[in-house]
Formats: sequence, C-alpha cells, structure tokens
Amino acid sequence: MNAGFDPELHKVPAPPMRWDAWGDPELAAPLSEGTSTLIRGMLGVSGDVTLPTIDPATVAVSPSRLSADDLRGLRGIVGDDWVSAADADRLVRAGGKSTPDLLRRRQSNQDAPDAVVVPATDDEVAALLAWAAEQGVAVVPFGGGTSVVGGVDPEAGRFRAAVSVDLRRMNALIDLDEVSQIATLGAGLTGPDAEKLLGERGYSIGHFPQSFRYATIGGFAVTRSSGQASAGYGRFDDMVQALTLVTPKGVLEAGRSPKNAVGPDLRQLVMGSEGAFGIVTRVSVRVHRVPEATEYEAWRFDSFADAAAAFRGTAQEGVMPTVMRVSDEVETALNLARPTEIGEEAAEETPAPPGGCLAITTFEGSPAAVAARAGVVREIFAGAGGQSLGEAAAKTWEHGRFSGPYLRDALLDIGVGCETLETVTTWSNLDKLKTAVTAALTEALPEPTVVMCHISHTYATGASLYFTVVYRQDDTPLDQWLAAKKKVSQAIVDAGASITHHHAVGRDHQPWLADEIGTLGVDILTAVKSAVDPAGVCNPGKLV
Amino acid sequence: MNAGFDPELHKVPAPPMRWDAWGDPELAAPLSEGTSTLIRGMLGVSGDVTLPTIDPATVAVSPSRLSADDLRGLRGIVGDDWVSAADADRLVRAGGKSTPDLLRRRQSNQDAPDAVVVPATDDEVAALLAWAAEQGVAVVPFGGGTSVVGGVDPEAGRFRAAVSVDLRRMNALIDLDEVSQIATLGAGLTGPDAEKLLGERGYSIGHFPQSFRYATIGGFAVTRSSGQASAGYGRFDDMVQALTLVTPKGVLEAGRSPKNAVGPDLRQLVMGSEGAFGIVTRVSVRVHRVPEATEYEAWRFDSFADAAAAFRGTAQEGVMPTVMRVSDEVETALNLARPTEIGEEAAEETPAPPGGCLAITTFEGSPAAVAARAGVVREIFAGAGGQSLGEAAAKTWEHGRFSGPYLRDALLDIGVGCETLETVTTWSNLDKLKTAVTAALTEALPEPTVVMCHISHTYATGASLYFTVVYRQDDTPLDQWLAAKKKVSQAIVDAGASITHHHAVGRDHQPWLADEIGTLGVDILTAVKSAVDPAGVCNPGKLV
Repeated sequence: MNAGFDPELHKVPAPPMRWDAWGDPELAAPLSEGTSTLIRGMLGVSGDVTLPTIDPATVAVSPSRLSADDLRGLRGIVGDDWVSAADADRLVRAGGKSTPDLLRRRQSNQDAPDAVVVPATDDEVAALLAWAAEQGVAVVPFGGGTSVVGGVDPEAGRFRAAVSVDLRRMNALIDLDEVSQIATLGAGLTGPDAEKLLGERGYSIGHFPQSFRYATIGGFAVTRSSGQASAGYGRFDDMVQALTLVTPKGVLEAGRSPKNAVGPDLRQLVMGSEGAFGIVTRVSVRVHRVPEATEYEAWRFDSFADAAAAFRGTAQEGVMPTVMRVSDEVETALNLARPTEIGEEAAEETPAPPGGCLAITTFEGSPAAVAARAGVVREIFAGAGGQSLGEAAAKTWEHGRFSGPYLRDALLDIGVGCETLETVTTWSNLDKLKTAVTAALTEALPEPTVVMCHISHTYATGASLYFTVVYRQDDTPLDQWLAAKKKVSQAIVDAGASITHHHAVGRDHQPWLADEIGTLGVDILTAVKSAVDPAGVCNPGKLV
Repeated sequence: MNAGFDPELHKVPAPPMRWDAWGDPELAAPLSEGTSTLIRGMLGVSGDVTLPTIDPATVAVSPSRLSADDLRGLRGIVGDDWVSAADADRLVRAGGKSTPDLLRRRQSNQDAPDAVVVPATDDEVAALLAWAAEQGVAVVPFGGGTSVVGGVDPEAGRFRAAVSVDLRRMNALIDLDEVSQIATLGAGLTGPDAEKLLGERGYSIGHFPQSFRYATIGGFAVTRSSGQASAGYGRFDDMVQALTLVTPKGVLEAGRSPKNAVGPDLRQLVMGSEGAFGIVTRVSVRVHRVPEATEYEAWRFDSFADAAAAFRGTAQEGVMPTVMRVSDEVETALNLARPTEIGEEAAEETPAPPGGCLAITTFEGSPAAVAARAGVVREIFAGAGGQSLGEAAAKTWEHGRFSGPYLRDALLDIGVGCETLETVTTWSNLDKLKTAVTAALTEALPEPTVVMCHISHTYATGASLYFTVVYRQDDTPLDQWLAAKKKVSQAIVDAGASITHHHAVGRDHQPWLADEIGTLGVDILTAVKSAVDPAGVCNPGKLV
C-alpha cells in the first residue's frame, strides 16, 4: 500500500508507488555507509538530513473544484466505487517522479487532480471523454505515475478542473496469439503483471525500462519507452503491433498487420501522443518465448570512445546482443566504488578494471542463436580493444537494475540533488553531445558536480546518452534544478540532438518541441489534436 | 530514351521507362518459345497478337488546360528550360505501370498532365506549390513513374488543371556521414544512380524492390517501399532517418536522431503520404559498407506451410538472412518450367525438386557474421523439413530478379492478363488470407486462372503474400481486371489483412482505406492534409 496514508482514507486503490518518493517503501534502503561516505566526500555535504519528506497528514491539498453534480455524473459513468475526490486519492496522483516532482512533494501545499476516476472499459473511457468535453474538464491519464517529464501533472489548462483517469482496471491479458507471437494487453497492466500473465504461458515481452516495476503497458506506448533489452527486443514502439486509442471523436484502431504501405503509420502517431490525443486502452505487442538460453558477458574498454566504437561496429554489423550498455569512465568508477551496487560476487570473481569503462552484454534466445550472436559480438568487441571480464559483473548489473531510483530519495534527504536525463544523436555527433551536456551541467550547478553517462540504446546510425548528475543543492533546490535543466536542454538542442530519447516530452520538454520538430511539425500535431479532441480536454499542457 | 517518341518532340528529359510498357525497350524480350507454349497450353490462347501497343503518333492526348500566362508563371519559377506542355512530355507522365495503366496506354485517347515542371531546389518546389495553391492547379509529383496503384495519375480533382512535377533534377548525393552510415540523397535519384554514387564511396543502401532500376528515393519513401533484401536491411521506412517535406505551408524537416521519444514520429507521417501532404525533396537513409562476404543458399520445402513455418521460426528467433523468399507450389512449378528464368546453370547443378516449394536465402556482411547467421538459419530450415539445394538457384534468382515485369507486356500482346498484388497479415491468419485471395481471383476471372504466390517480406509476427495472376483476357480487359481487383481487394479486407504491403494506396486502393484505418483514421489524415495543404492541390484523389 501507499506509504504515509491510512488505507482507510482511500476510496479507490492507490498506485503502487509512494506518493513522495520512488517505488515501494519496503524496497527503499537508506544510503549505505560506503555510498554516504563517498558522496559526502565528493560533494562536501555533512550527511545530515536537510530536506526531509513531509507527513501527508499535514499537507494542504488543493481542494477539488468539482461539484456534487460533477461527481454524480462521473459515478454514472464508471459506478459509485470508482470515483473519488478524497484528498488521499488525489494526492497520490499529483505528479510523476522527476526530481522536481520529488522536491515539490516535500512542500506543504500540493496541487492535485480534482477527482480520480477508474474506468474499466472502452465505453466507459469514451463516455468519460464525452462528459469531459461537454463539461469543460481536463482529463489526465494515469498509469504507473512514473513520468519524469511532468506527463501526469494534473493541469486543468483553460478548463475548470482536471480529473485523473487511472487505468489500473484495464489490466487483462486480452489475447495471446501464440503462432504470431502477439499479445493484446490492457493499457493499465504494469510491467510485472504483464510479464507474469505472459510467463504463465511461456512468453515474455522483454521490455525492461528502469520504471518496469510500476509503469504500465499504455504508458510504455504513449511515451515511446525504451527498455534495457532494446538491443535485442527493440524499443517498445518497435514491438507494438496495434493500439486502441479512445478519443472524444471516436475510437482509432491503429495497426492491422505487422508492417504495411497503407499510408502513414497511424500507430506511430498514437505512440508518443502522451494522452494528448485521447486514452490508449489496449496494446498488441510482439512477444517471444521465454528464452531457452541466456549468456552474460562483461567487458572493459580503455575509454568510452573505444567502447562506443565497438557498439557502433556491432550495430552496423546488425548482429546484436539482447542487452548492450556501457558506462563512461566516471560512472564506471563510481559504480565500482559502491560495493552494494556491484556486489560482493563481482568483486571476488572479476579483476576490478583499473580505470576504463565497464560494458555489459547479455544474449537471450535458442542456444544456437545465442552462441552465434555472442561469437560475432565477441570478435567485434575484442577487435575494438575490449577485454572480457566474464559474466559476474553482467549478472550483478541485472540483479540491481531496477534499484537506481531509490538512491535519489536518500540523497535528497541530505541535500544532494540527483537527476537523470537522456538524449540521442548520430554516432558522428556523439562526442560533441556528451561534451556539451557535461559542460552545461557542470556550469549550471555548483562545483564539484558529478556527471556520469552511459549508452544503453544502440542503433546502426547512433546511440542514446543517459546522464546521471549528482550535485550539492542550494536553498532553493527546485529553482536550482529547473535552471540547470533549462541550460542543459538548450545545450542538447543546440548540439543537434533530440531533447529526449525515451522519457517523452510531457510538460518539461515542451519548450524545446518546436526547436526539434519545427513550427510546421507542431502545427501538424495541433491539427491532429483538433481532429480527435476539438475541445482540447485531453491532457492539456502536455506535448502540444 | 523513351520508346516510340522522336526525341525532338521532348522539351524536357523523358523518364527512363517506355510510355506504354515496363522498363527499357532494349531490355524487353519477346516471350520465349517455352513460355509461350506453356502459357498458350495452360490458358488456351492462340498466341496471336490480339491487343497491340499503339503508335504514340496516333494518340489523341488530352489538350493542356493551362494558359500562356500559366506557363509563364511556371517558367518564372523553374526557368524556361524546365517547363513543357508538349504532348510528348505530358504523355510519358500519363500514369504508372499497373496492368490497368498498361491497358489504358493501348487506347487511342490519353489523359495527360497539363504541363511538366522540373524544379531543382526546395525553394523552387515551395514556389511551385505556392503558385499551384494560388492558381488552383493540382500538383502531381513524379519520380520514376513505377506506381502500380495510380499514384502518379494526373488527376486535377476539383482544380482546373494538373501539373506533373518531375523530381529528376534533385539527384545529388548531398551528404554521406560515414561514421553514422547515413546518406542524404535527393528525392529524384533513381535506385541505380543512388547505388552508383554510394558504391563509389564503398557504401550501399540495400533497397532492391522490383522497380529498383527506375523508381526513386523519394518514391520509395512516400510509398513505404519494401525491397527484396528487406529481411536483412529492412523496409525503406526502416532505413529512413530523416526527410525534407516541402508543403504549401512550409518545410517540415522530420527526423533529428535515429529514434527518440519526441512525441509522434513525424517521419512515419511523411512516409506513406504519397504526395498528398507535399513533395519530399530529400531523404537521409541508413547505408552500410558494401558487404565483404555474400553467401547464397536455395532450399526445397515439401509445402508452402512447411516453408512458412521455417520462415516464421527464423524471424521469431531474430537471426535473419539478407534475402529470404519462398514461392508456393504453383509459382515454383511455373518458374522451373521456364528454363529462361531459372537458367541452365541451375538446371545442371541442382536436382530439380519434385514438386514442393523453392526458397531462396542470401546472407551479406562480414565473413564471421554471414557464417554465424547462415548457421542459425540453416539449423531452423533443416529442422522444419527444408532440404538444401546449394547456391545455384539462389544466384539465378538474383540475376533475373528485376526482369519479371517485362513478361507482362509480352503477355498482354497475346490477350493474356498478368498482374501482381500483395498484402500482409499475421502468421496465424496467413493460410486463410492466401486461400481467400486465391478464391477471389479464380472466381472473378475465367477458368483456368493461374494464381502464384510468394513470401518475400518476413516479420516476427507475420509476412507479406505477393500474388501473380495470369488469365485469359476478355473483350473488355480493363473492366475485366478492375472487377477482379475489386473482388480481391474486398476479400483481403474481409480476411483482416492489409490492402497493401508495399505498393501503397494511390488511387486504386483508396476505396478500402477507411475499412483498414477507420473513419477516424481517415479524418486524422484529412486534418493533417488540411494543415499542410489547405487548398488541397497536392496530388488530389490519392491517399485521402
């Protein structure tokens, strides 16, 4: 259950995550002594708690602007049990999990949606949208609440109120076509629930973003999520075969066949739409048999440039691992300096690489395919100066791969900011981009600021760069980060890269949307929105 | 030069293909004695020429509806040398190369565009579109003229005239980023010219549709073309990194990075737009080094079902050949019955499979990657009952792979209709679709009608089916085929498949567009068109 709230206060089920921090309170650990010492030493902070979390009982939640008539209207659509205007229910859907979100959650006043509605069917979603358009009420879809770009912020925009539409009841494995290896899933299924339902039948999606434990199928689709196994199974937008989008103007069933030439690909218009065009209720995705074989191999490269060349060679050869990621020198050094993250096992079995960069590969599939792919990749990596470290470090990475975000909350307590951001560009522009982002962050934040980077999504023509920045917060930490974010976002755009590789646009990246897609691009998206949502009630303030 | 016309009659360069038949007249061969005997025997036709081609000097070309002022306006934009209202120039852009097109070309009255304009720059294209919108003149982009769905038909729609905009002058290799392996190409470059320019630098696109010799880069993009090496290098829409679309409302530069989460993917809206949203002038595509190694292997399967299972297993394992195609029993039998198509070499070196289905694989890449991929595929094929036939039949297929369409013209002469159509669906629906299409064709056309089929594009979740139908024409061959096409298109839609896998919508598939994408889907495309082309002058009557 959601931490900090008396379950009695909830009228509808709460999201799986804490309202004011990442994840499950039972999985959150205090900073280890090692990490704490390291961070305190690096940044010169005392380790005392300077920015505590807040008791939700003391929070002033913005009052609901909906009338009794409004709530009656909503209950008429989804039933009495599935509408709530209780503070507890509204507060846990007040936003996502970016560092600005978590800083806002530590304030005593909280903006929250005016009600929470939990529909179960397409018809209910359609009726909700019709009601909202007629009543002039904004509709904000809510999946796992893991957005780090303000995508679920309860903005009413020009409307009189905003309701959060929680999709948790749309959580069925609707169909599994085992011949075609296509699963049709309710948009509200979380990653683990989807994998569990499919696993019982011997299948897996293979989509494991860091938000996997909480994020939902619909959220993956509308934000163009990309998971840690993207090298092998593709981004989520590569996996999607079909989607059902319920809009105020009707239902769009996009995707009738794997690939076709029937005009523009409307799936690709729904993906990335972030609720602005309506609500995705159902997604058909490519699945695969739970793999027979898995091989792990970690590698050391002398430099990030060497590793990037190896990754480029691999992608351009077209024979890929399932997971392929590499940390730069700083991230490698700091991860290895945290024994709780790399693990005892790794420390014992592999020689700690003296400097350099740690790369992880895994291979899943039939034994023959795994061996064949691993052989090709091994040859390319070795040819690019890679040194095999065996499997331990790769297994350790896999074991801890969803735990990173918990660290951030513990750091915030002691006045240390920790945020991630990500971008993508072509190979020929990668160095320039990494330098520009690092410079923008170190210039915008107090010295010493630690900037770590890794590549976790690799294409034949380029790669993503995922940055983690750790810095000393000042007295106005929200403003401090927003100013840094603005500078680094501009640096990304100025470097010719994309403002986001897999976190989406939401509210936070919207100021750079026109830089990226041009004013005509924005006009096109606006035209689409007007066609499907003429009243403009669908997630206002996000995307367009 | 274009056959049948005195070059003196052309004011602007002619397209590379004959006006009334496929391809280059010098490459067209009369029916071989063997093929002729086979076809005459099968269909009961005499072999006499019953439907001759027509002397273009005797054709009544629809007169140009443009005034001297109009032509002056156009010359002011592109220069005096690049505008023509000459009959010869207009007639060679009267349509594409479907069987209905070729039947129409054998009539004495021909509809043609009212002028041909050949711009060289984005600015000229923008000025042309502005002129057209202001003057109420339709604009029909023209690349290689290989459309088989009426995509380049010079329809004026509700406007007073239509100009054909030939993109042949936009034929540069604009940029080659060798690190990122991205080439930026002018939209008017033909397949061979693009490969030649890239080949000089050691690169290749690897996009080889049957139209390769004549079709253009821009055409590949706006129709979502798929080439014979799609298993290895992807469809053209997979290769495209960025496009420049010039519209009456400005220029859209779509695609800033390999993949990203910056909202809907606007590249995927431009691809498949078929000129209805403006004119694509420039395309950046993924390229690869000219492969070091190529391996060929042909296979025999007892049945199409066995072969399909092998292809499915391969795609679902995710280790693919570069080319992977299989003919069904009928196509296999007829190809082997035509010694000029399979070749002496094949007949000598491989045992002719007794019945069954012929599959072709090729593998391109580094020697290590080719060996690894071929090993995995060989194991899957053998496990599914495949019997290796060695490399000869695969090499023979490659040698003749662009020659098929010439046969059609020779057959039309003797009253034999020959047309192709294609579709795509999921694996679980493939049998049903094949049966439905075959039934629709054999019911719509006179007995005996020969329906051949192959799979040439394979996905983890499904495959394309490419049909060739050969039948005895009646006295009204155009009506005869259009009636059959209508029935088979409806059968495809009713079977839950896509109306086209890689030929596009154009004019011919438009009646089924709403069946496929829904009325809301059509509304969305219409909204996009209105945003970029409010006057509606861009290729009216196509797509939306």
